[in-house]
Amino acid sequence: MKLLLGSGGIRNEEQVKLYHDEMAHHFQGIDEVLFIPYAGKDHDYYLKRIQDFSVSSGIKLVGIQHAEDPIKAVEEAKGIYVGGGNTFLLTRDLHENGIIDPIRNQVEAGIAYMGVSAGSNVAGPSMQTTNDMPIVSPPSFETLNLVPFQINPHYFAGQIWIKEGESYTPHHGETRQDRLREFHQHNTTPVLGLWEGTYLRWNGQTGELMGGNATVFQAGKEPTSHDTGTIFDGSLKSK
Amino acid sequence: MKLLLGSGGIRNEEQVKLYHDEMAHHFQGIDEVLFIPYAGKDHDYYLKRIQDFSVSSGIKLVGIQHAEDPIKAVEEAKGIYVGGGNTFLLTRDLHENGIIDPIRNQVEAGIAYMGVSAGSNVAGPSMQTTNDMPIVSPPSFETLNLVPFQINPHYFAGQIWIKEGESYTPHHGETRQDRLREFHQHNTTPVLGLWEGTYLRWNGQTGELMGGNATVFQAGKEPTSHDTGTIFDGSLKSK
Repeated sequence: MKLLLGSGGIRNEEQVKLYHDEMAHHFQGIDEVLFIPYAGKDHDYYLKRIQDFSVSSGIKLVGIQHAEDPIKAVEEAKGIYVGGGNTFLLTRDLHENGIIDPIRNQVEAGIAYMGVSAGSNVAGPSMQTTNDMPIVSPPSFETLNLVPFQINPHYFAGQIWIKEGESYTPHHGETRQDRLREFHQHNTTPVLGLWEGTYLRWNGQTGELMGGNATVFQAGKEPTSHDTGTIFDGSLKSK
Repeated sequence: MKLLLGSGGIRNEEQVKLYHDEMAHHFQGIDEVLFIPYAGKDHDYYLKRIQDFSVSSGIKLVGIQHAEDPIKAVEEAKGIYVGGGNTFLLTRDLHENGIIDPIRNQVEAGIAYMGVSAGSNVAGPSMQTTNDMPIVSPPSFETLNLVPFQINPHYFAGQIWIKEGESYTPHHGETRQDRLREFHQHNTTPVLGLWEGTYLRWNGQTGELMGGNATVFQAGKEPTSHDTGTIFDGSLKSK
C-alpha cells in the first residue's frame, strides 16, 4: 500500500515546497491522478484551486465530477487524491457515490492514495476524529479504513486563544486533547494527531512522519509527541 | 414556552452570579428540576458537579439516571435542565431513551427548560451547529426543535491562536464563521452564535439576550452582532 496523508495547514514556503516534493514523489510516473473534491461545495472551483496550488509538483489532476460514472473512474484510476474541506460532506458523498469499497479495493491493490485534511481523516476506519461541523448528515461515520488508526488533522496542543485588539484571551471550550480523550471514553482505536504541515507516508505496515510532528493518543494513556522521521506501526507504537 | 439557553463558558464571578440568578428566576417555585446529564460520560459525577455549581441558585436538581423510566421522569418533571458536554453523545442518548418527543411535549405545555452549551444546541431543530467531535453516532441529527433556529454555543469571532511559550501563532483551521458559512451552503435555518457567558430567554415568540453578546448568521447574508438586551423573533430578526 502507498499512502501519503497530510494534515493541511500548508502556509510557508518550506511547507509549500514539501507539498510539491512529496506529491511528485508519491505519484511519480503517473500521468493522471483522480482528484475527489467532495469535501467542498463547488467541485469545479475546488479542483481548479488545487490544480493551481499543485502545479509545481508536475502532477496532473482530473476531477471525478467530470466522469460519467464515479465508480468506474475510481476503478480506472492510477492514483487518487482526496482533498480537504468538510469531512461530513466528504463522507456523505463518498457513500452516496458508492466509492468507499472501490477506493479501498484500489488502494489495497497498490494504487497511490493521497489525502489532505478531510482526505486524511477518511483514510481511517471512521471520520469520528474530525474537527468539522456536521453541516450534512452522512449515512454512516464509517470511512475508507485504509489505515488501522484514526487521524486528527490540524492537531495542536493546549488552549485556544482569541485575539481582541492587541491582547489575547483564553477560550474556555474543550481543547483538542479534551475532545480526543472523550473519543477514547467510547472508542479504542488509536489516534494520530498530525500537526499543521505534517505528513505520514504509510506503506501498509509502517508509516514515517514527514515535515513536522504528531501526537499519539491511545485509550487510557497519556498522549505522546513525536518528531519528524518517527516510524510508527499500525497500533501507532513508534519504532 | 419558557426557555433559558446558555452558551456556557461561565468563569468569572459576575458570570457565576448571573448563572445563579437566572437559574433561580427561571425555575422559581419549582421544588425539583430534572437534570439530564447525557452529554457527559459519568452521569453521577456530572450531576454532582452541576449540583455543587448550582447550589447558590437554591434550585434542587435530580438526575434522570436515577429514574426507573426516563420517559415517565420527563412526563412528571416540573422543570428540565439539560447540561453541556458532547452534543453527539447527548443527542444519541436523547433518542435512545425515547425522550425527544416527551421533552418537546412538556416544554410546549409550559414546563421551564434550561440548556447550557450542548443542552442549548439540542433545543434547536438539529445538532448540526455543534462544535463537538462525533465521538459516537446518533441515529439522527434531529433534536428537540423547541426554538425555530440553530444555536452555536461558545461562539467567538476571528482566528484561533495557539500559545507557544510566551508568543502566539495563528492556527489555520477554519474559523467558526467559516464553519457556519459552510452550514448555510447546505441549510437555511438561521443560527444564533451565543458568546461565552451569554443566555437567551425565550418565551415561544421572542427571546432576550442576557449577560453578553450574540452573532446572528442568516443564509447568504453577512453575520451581524448584537448586544445584551436585544430582542429577537423566531427568524432571529432583532426588534
